[in-house]
Amino acid sequence: MGPTLSDSQLSAELFRPFLADSGQDDSRPRYRRLFRAFQQAILSGLLPAGAKLPASRALSSELSLSRNTVKTVYEMLQAEGYIETRHGAGSFVSTQLPELKPLSEQLAPVRSGARQAQLSRLADRLAPPAGRHRLRRGDLLLPAMPALDQFPWQSWQRSVARAGRAMKFETESGGLGLAALRQQIVDYLGVSRGIRCDAGQVLICSGSQQAIWLALSMLVDPGEPVLVENPGFPGIDGALAAVSADRVPVTVDVDGFRLLDGLQAAPQARLALLTPSRNYPMGYTLSLQRRLELLQWAEASGGWIIEDDYDSEFRFDGSPLTALQGLAADAPVIYAGTFSRILHPAIRLGYLILPRSVVDAFATARAYLDGGLSLLPQLALADFMASGQFSGHVRRMRKLYKQRRDLLTEMVQARFGKRLQRVASDGGMHSVYLLPDGCDDRELYRQALERGVGIRALSHYYHHHVGQPGLVIGFAGYDAPAMAEGLDRLQPLIEQALGN
Amino acid sequence: MGPTLSDSQLSAELFRPFLADSGQDDSRPRYRRLFRAFQQAILSGLLPAGAKLPASRALSSELSLSRNTVKTVYEMLQAEGYIETRHGAGSFVSTQLPELKPLSEQLAPVRSGARQAQLSRLADRLAPPAGRHRLRRGDLLLPAMPALDQFPWQSWQRSVARAGRAMKFETESGGLGLAALRQQIVDYLGVSRGIRCDAGQVLICSGSQQAIWLALSMLVDPGEPVLVENPGFPGIDGALAAVSADRVPVTVDVDGFRLLDGLQAAPQARLALLTPSRNYPMGYTLSLQRRLELLQWAEASGGWIIEDDYDSEFRFDGSPLTALQGLAADAPVIYAGTFSRILHPAIRLGYLILPRSVVDAFATARAYLDGGLSLLPQLALADFMASGQFSGHVRRMRKLYKQRRDLLTEMVQARFGKRLQRVASDGGMHSVYLLPDGCDDRELYRQALERGVGIRALSHYYHHHVGQPGLVIGFAGYDAPAMAEGLDRLQPLIEQALGN
Repeated sequence: MGPTLSDSQLSAELFRPFLADSGQDDSRPRYRRLFRAFQQAILSGLLPAGAKLPASRALSSELSLSRNTVKTVYEMLQAEGYIETRHGAGSFVSTQLPELKPLSEQLAPVRSGARQAQLSRLADRLAPPAGRHRLRRGDLLLPAMPALDQFPWQSWQRSVARAGRAMKFETESGGLGLAALRQQIVDYLGVSRGIRCDAGQVLICSGSQQAIWLALSMLVDPGEPVLVENPGFPGIDGALAAVSADRVPVTVDVDGFRLLDGLQAAPQARLALLTPSRNYPMGYTLSLQRRLELLQWAEASGGWIIEDDYDSEFRFDGSPLTALQGLAADAPVIYAGTFSRILHPAIRLGYLILPRSVVDAFATARAYLDGGLSLLPQLALADFMASGQFSGHVRRMRKLYKQRRDLLTEMVQARFGKRLQRVASDGGMHSVYLLPDGCDDRELYRQALERGVGIRALSHYYHHHVGQPGLVIGFAGYDAPAMAEGLDRLQPLIEQALGN
Repeated sequence: MGPTLSDSQLSAELFRPFLADSGQDDSRPRYRRLFRAFQQAILSGLLPAGAKLPASRALSSELSLSRNTVKTVYEMLQAEGYIETRHGAGSFVSTQLPELKPLSEQLAPVRSGARQAQLSRLADRLAPPAGRHRLRRGDLLLPAMPALDQFPWQSWQRSVARAGRAMKFETESGGLGLAALRQQIVDYLGVSRGIRCDAGQVLICSGSQQAIWLALSMLVDPGEPVLVENPGFPGIDGALAAVSADRVPVTVDVDGFRLLDGLQAAPQARLALLTPSRNYPMGYTLSLQRRLELLQWAEASGGWIIEDDYDSEFRFDGSPLTALQGLAADAPVIYAGTFSRILHPAIRLGYLILPRSVVDAFATARAYLDGGLSLLPQLALADFMASGQFSGHVRRMRKLYKQRRDLLTEMVQARFGKRLQRVASDGGMHSVYLLPDGCDDRELYRQALERGVGIRALSHYYHHHVGQPGLVIGFAGYDAPAMAEGLDRLQPLIEQALGN
C-alpha cells in the first residue's frame, strides 16, 4: 500500500484546472475532463500505485460537481483498469499498471525525431508542390466553373428528397455503383455520345479524379511509361505520381495528340491518357486519322487508351463528336466522364465505361479501396436524369455557354483588339488567348489571383511549364457584368504584359 | 474518284439492318444508329474512299426516315471527317482516311491475346479470391447489419432535404471533407469516446474501408511488415494487399492484441492495425497494460497505430471505453471510425482522426486520389447530427442491441443448452459461439447461406483459416421473429455439426 491522498483539498487543487473549460477545442463534458484528469495523474505517477482516491462525496463538493458525475468517473476508471475499488475501504490506484519506462530490448531502437519522416514513399510522391495556389470561391473567370446560378435547384431538391426516401430500400451499392444511375448513364451516353455499352460496364466514381486514378492503378505498373498530352490537364499528375508512372509528354497540335511522337520517345508505351474530344486547355479535337491510328496502335500493341471526356457536352457547333470509345466495338478504351463540370462541383460523381474483360477486376479493386460510394447522391442523380431535367439542363447550358463564349470574345476584342488572339475551339467552358513570346503569364496569373480573378496561365499546362504563354479564361460560370468586372480587373495587368 | 453508289436501293439494303432496334442494350436514337452504319461501312471499306453517298432525299424515303435525320447524319459524318461534301455534286467518302492496315514498324510488336493479361500487378494482387460468397440482401443473422427498421427515416429525410438546399451554397469540400460534418464528429467523439481533437484533424472518407486503405497507403511501403490481429477483420486484407504490406498476424487473447508476440515475429514492424475497443470478431477488449505497452512501443520505435474503432458505440455495460487515441496527447495513433454500422450501410461515410503532423500529407494525397467526396451525404449527416437525432439514435440502438443480444443468448441457450458456448463480450452487433474442435464451421457457413442465413464461420477470421471453429451470429438487425426464423433454419445444421 503506497502513500494515501486523504486530503481532498489537495485533490481538488489537483483536478480543478482540468475542469476549467479549455474553450472551443474542448467539447468534452465535465465527467470526461475529470476522467482524463485522473487518468493523466495516474499515468504520470502523480497519483502513485496504491494511492487512495478521495471519497466521491468530498471530491464532488470540493469541485462543485454532482456526486453522480464523480461516481461515473470512478466507475469508468475502474472499468478501464486505472483503479481498484475495495468494498468499504474505498478506491485505490491500481497496482497492476506497468511502469512507464521504455519496454524491453525486444523493441526496435528509438528513431528520435523520425515522426515527420515516417510516411510512405507514396506520401512523398504526393507531397504538395511548394507555392501552390488555392483558388478562393468567388474568383472571377475560373475555367471549368459551371453556371451555378442556372442550376435547376427546385428540381434537384425534389430529386434529393426522393433519394432520401429511396435510400430506405437500398443497402450497399456494390463495386460498380447504383444500378439505376448506371442505366441512366448508358442511356445518356448512347444518345449524346454514340457510346454503346450496358450498365454492367459502368463504374461510378468520386468525380473523374478517382476514375482516372483507378484506371491508372489498374493498368500501370511502377516505372511504366504513360503517354500524356502536352499541353494537358495537370490534375492527372497526382494520379500518375501515385502509381509511379513514367510520365511521357506528347505534343498536341491542331489535329490533337501526336501518337507517333510519343511512340518515338517511348516505343514500349502501352497506355495513352488523353482528351480526344477537346484537348485541355487548347480545345483542339483529335482528327479522325489520328483516332484510327491510336486505336490501331492499342489493338496491335495490346495497349490501352484512357479517354478523358470531361466536357464534350459543350460542343457549340453541331452535336458532340463520337467518342473514341464508340469508334470500334470492344476497343481497348476506358472512357472517363464526370458530372461535376456539367452540373455542380459539389456533386463529385464521375464514371468509367469499361471493356467487359476488365469489369470484374475494377469492381473488386474499388470495393477493397473505398468500398463504394454513398448511395444518396447516386439516387438523387439517377432520379434527376430519369426526370429529364438533366438533359434539359445540358441543352440549356450548351446554348448559354455558346452565348457567353461569344460575349467574352466580343469583350476581349473590344478591349485588346488584335493584340490578344483567341485559340479557335468548337466549345468548352473557357477560351485560350495567346500572349507574345516572352510574356510571363504565370506572374500575370498570380497578380490576377490577388485581384480575385481565377484565370490560369497557359504555360502552366505545358511540361515543365515551357510553352506558349497565354491566358485560360473561364466564361461558362459568369454573366455579362461578372465577365466585365473580371476583365476590368485584368486589363491593366494584360496591358502591362503586352508592354503598353 | 472511286466507284459510286448511285443506286439508293443498295444503300437502303446496306443500312436498314443497322436501323432495326437491337433491343434494350441499344438506347441510341435512329440518327446515331444510321451514323454508326455509315461510319462502320466506311471504316470497313464497304464504302470505299471517293464513293458517292446517296442523296439524302432518296435515302430518307428508302429508309422511311425524316430527311432531316439523314441530313443530320451527313453533317455529323462531315464534321468528323468521314465524308466530303462538294457543293452541287453531293457527298463523297473522304479520300483522306488512312488505310486500315497496321501502322509502321515504329510500333511495339503485337502481343496477341495479351488483352486479358494487360492489367497492373496491383490488379493481380486484388484479384477476387475464388469461390468468394456474395451475401444476398435479406439474409438473416448477418453480423454488422444494423436495425434498419429502427432508423429514424423521417428525421433523416428532413436532414436530406435541408442538405439538398444547403448544397446550393457549397462548392468543393476540399481534401478533408465538409467542415460542418468534421466539427460534428469532433463534438461527438469528445463526448462519446473522450477523444480530444479539432476539426482540422478529421478527414472524411468513404466508409472505414477507404479510411484504412488511405492510412495504410500513407504509412506503409511495399514489403514492410504490418501487425494485424489474429483473429481479425478480413476486410482489411484487400487494403494490405493494395500496398503490398507484409501482413504479420498477431495472436489476440482475452486481454487483446499480444504486441510482444508480433514484435518477436517482426522486430522492425512500425505499424500496428487493430481494434482495441472490441476485437473483431471475438469482442475482446485491449487491456490497459497492453494499451500502454502499445503506445510506448510506437513512441519508442517511431511507429504508428491505426485504431479501427468500428462499433465501440455499442458497449452495453457502462460508457464506451477511452479510445487509444485519447490516452496520450499527440500519440502516434490514427483513429478510424464509420457511420455505416451505426446508421445505415448506404451512408458509406467514415473518417480518420489524424495527428496534426500528417494532416496536410493525407489531405493532399486524398485530393489527388479521389478529389473528395460528394457533399450531399456529408451535409445531410452534419444536419442529422446537429439536430440531436444521431446521438439519440445511438442511445436507442445501444439499448435495443443489448436486449437483442440477451434475446439471442436465451434462444440459443433454449435450443442447444451448454453445447454451444458464447464468447463473453461487453457489446457489439454479433455474438460468437464456439463449436467443438474439428467441426467444419466453413461448411456450416455455406449450408446456412444456402438457407438464407448470413452467419459467418469463426475460423474464417483466423490467419489461413486455422483456428477455433465457431459461429459469428449477428443480432443487431433482427427482431425476435427474424431471430427465431434464422435459428430454426440453423438448428439442423448445428445439430449435425455437434454430431447429434
